Amino acid sequence: MPSIPHYRIASIPADGIGPEVISAAIEVVNVLADTRKTFTIEFTHLPWGTAYYKEHGRYMPPDALDRLRTFDAGLFGSVGAPDVPDHISLWGLLLAIRGPMQLYANVRPIRTFPGIKSPLTTVDPAKGIDWVLVRENSEGEYSGQGGRSHLRQPWETATEVAIFTRVGIERIMRFAFEAAQARPRKHLTVVTKSNSMRNGMVLWDEVAVEVAKDFPDVTWDKMLVDAMTVRMVAKPDSIDTVVGTNLHMDILSDLAAALAGSIGIAASSNLDPTRKNPSLFEPVHGSAFDITGKGVANPVAAFWSAAEMLKWVGKGKTGADLGEKGGAGEEAAEVLMRCIERVCAAGIMTADLGGKEDTRGVTRAMCDEIRKTA
Amino acid sequence: MPSIPHYRIASIPADGIGPEVISAAIEVVNVLADTRKTFTIEFTHLPWGTAYYKEHGRYMPPDALDRLRTFDAGLFGSVGAPDVPDHISLWGLLLAIRGPMQLYANVRPIRTFPGIKSPLTTVDPAKGIDWVLVRENSEGEYSGQGGRSHLRQPWETATEVAIFTRVGIERIMRFAFEAAQARPRKHLTVVTKSNSMRNGMVLWDEVAVEVAKDFPDVTWDKMLVDAMTVRMVAKPDSIDTVVGTNLHMDILSDLAAALAGSIGIAASSNLDPTRKNPSLFEPVHGSAFDITGKGVANPVAAFWSAAEMLKWVGKGKTGADLGEKGGAGEEAAEVLMRCIERVCAAGIMTADLGGKEDTRGVTRAMCDEIRKTA
Ligand SMILES: CC(C)[C@H](C(=O)O)[C@@H](O)C(=O)O
Ligand SMILES: CC(C)[C@H](C(=O)O)[C@@H](O)C(=O)O
Repeated sequence: MPSIPHYRIASIPADGIGPEVISAAIEVVNVLADTRKTFTIEFTHLPWGTAYYKEHGRYMPPDALDRLRTFDAGLFGSVGAPDVPDHISLWGLLLAIRGPMQLYANVRPIRTFPGIKSPLTTVDPAKGIDWVLVRENSEGEYSGQGGRSHLRQPWETATEVAIFTRVGIERIMRFAFEAAQARPRKHLTVVTKSNSMRNGMVLWDEVAVEVAKDFPDVTWDKMLVDAMTVRMVAKPDSIDTVVGTNLHMDILSDLAAALAGSIGIAASSNLDPTRKNPSLFEPVHGSAFDITGKGVANPVAAFWSAAEMLKWVGKGKTGADLGEKGGAGEEAAEVLMRCIERVCAAGIMTADLGGKEDTRGVTRAMCDEIRKTA
Repeated sequence: MPSIPHYRIASIPADGIGPEVISAAIEVVNVLADTRKTFTIEFTHLPWGTAYYKEHGRYMPPDALDRLRTFDAGLFGSVGAPDVPDHISLWGLLLAIRGPMQLYANVRPIRTFPGIKSPLTTVDPAKGIDWVLVRENSEGEYSGQGGRSHLRQPWETATEVAIFTRVGIERIMRFAFEAAQARPRKHLTVVTKSNSMRNGMVLWDEVAVEVAKDFPDVTWDKMLVDAMTVRMVAKPDSIDTVVGTNLHMDILSDLAAALAGSIGIAASSNLDPTRKNPSLFEPVHGSAFDITGKGVANPVAAFWSAAEMLKWVGKGKTGADLGEKGGAGEEAAEVLMRCIERVCAAGIMTADLGGKEDTRGVTRAMCDEIRKTA
């Protein structure tokens, strides 16, 4: 009997609805593994987050990154709590992993789903939206530098310093061109703001021109971030793959998900494309304390994130190319996505999407669908 | 006979389609003055821009700001040319006026017009969109600081430094609360990104809380810039007045205009609310060299900018409050806006809005409409 791959996953549910949606995702993935029998998977719970912070004075232990490095990937819930300032919780956990672990590519697939409508009349219903947004995830506006002087004085000054490096820009640019190359349309849009920001943004423009030379089969264009929002609204069909800075793509990816009608189910991957470090997969939604504990959270973003994770760890065996086939993991991811589509199309949804189900109802429907499909 | 006000305006058409739309606007405003006879107006042409740069090595003369200060207001076209890097042309002219002249409030009215549809299904057609976006226009991400080290080396680093001051934040916050207070709904949304940016953005949050105390009749809420794009798409009706940083509102205001279906006609005001310096009014659209010289540019953004200008100089006599009545100027602005609405509703539009007219055709229709209305 040929051996099947075994995936070791760190689960970090963290705060708010994080634990609810991550446990739903683990259940679904376990059913997937049990029915397909093409891989085995093991989740290890890491209890980091605000409760940990209140007990230990920090969001994760000092050796957290070393511990994470012993896994094939991480599945992350959401961090943030009403009684801790957001910048403390986020820099305590999520941003303390993304940058230091060099998870420099944040990938956000954006697509329309059956049963979920785009609110845009400019979207051709027959085609829908199908974009891949690539966000630089390790530097730029999120370098964490800057400070405040003369606290609370009328002459107080505060700075935010965005730091861009040629190395950092080049690696994300190369990743984005490869991602575009792997898609049927092979088109990349590079987003900057080089008319008003004269240093890092001009460097982005220059690096784009240089890296593009290595991808003669990829067509590409350049947009200013403000004009890009207009293009997303007015000409959604002209867009395929997009790359930009940490802040710009944070904004554009939320907008994109909203335009696809799928903000509640959007997934994101924090990748180290060199595969030296395990990548981290997370729903785009936040900790949503207003609905925490009610069992009504939409688990689909966590399912989709788990699918991206399976695809990535599957490809781990065959290389970092986004376009390559990844064996069991990728195949399982495809099944998972197909089941999400079917469950959505059947109208089995939580209230945020206009449905009547709770977290359990959607999870159960997913498990049934997986068993039927297998 | 009572004396009527006289307005002295600097016209800076600058580059691309700038001269075409500004001369159309001047024509329309002159017809307005001639027919209403409630004010007189005089435009002085300042030939600054890329042609000036090519002759003199700078975009405007060294005493440009002093010369501008002799006028009641400025009407600006657009700056930028294909053969000059954008950051040179923009920092040479527009950004060299906005910051140094302390035109710290950039106001962008966003609304739907008869005959121009919002591409959003979430917009109630009976209500349309009616927002006011207030952008901090003198500091923040556009402070112009930062640099590049080790040019063209693999270890090159580039920085963009955003500088925020308590003074700068407080004055724009106060302006925005006043703008909200003057509107029927009296609601303000303060946009920041204080979960990932820990210095200037947290200062913004703090100042908002303090300034809000002086406006007990204004309701307000706080949004992260990424989440704000989602709200604009999904719940447009929940928005009234919005304030944010130079970069954030640059992005959100383009998005807003696109969501209202009116990006081609959007206007913006660069205001010094203290009225120590003359304010500058400009269409949001760029220099559009692809259509320059063809006579097809949409002049409506310039008309709308001229209306905002008349409103502002009119109010100059009665104080800086956005909500106050401004006599002849404000009344003329109202007529101008009504005529824009009628011309749009009649389908007299340029090709960018799906119409069949050229610049002259729309301008002529506007002049006719003004004569009919008066
Ligand atoms: C949670 C927050 C720090 C984060 C970000 O701004 O990066 C979020 O908005 C995201 O998009 O991942
Ligand atoms: C022309 C450019 C510098 C400008 C900006 O980014 O501020 C424009 O986009 C605007 O919105 O006024």
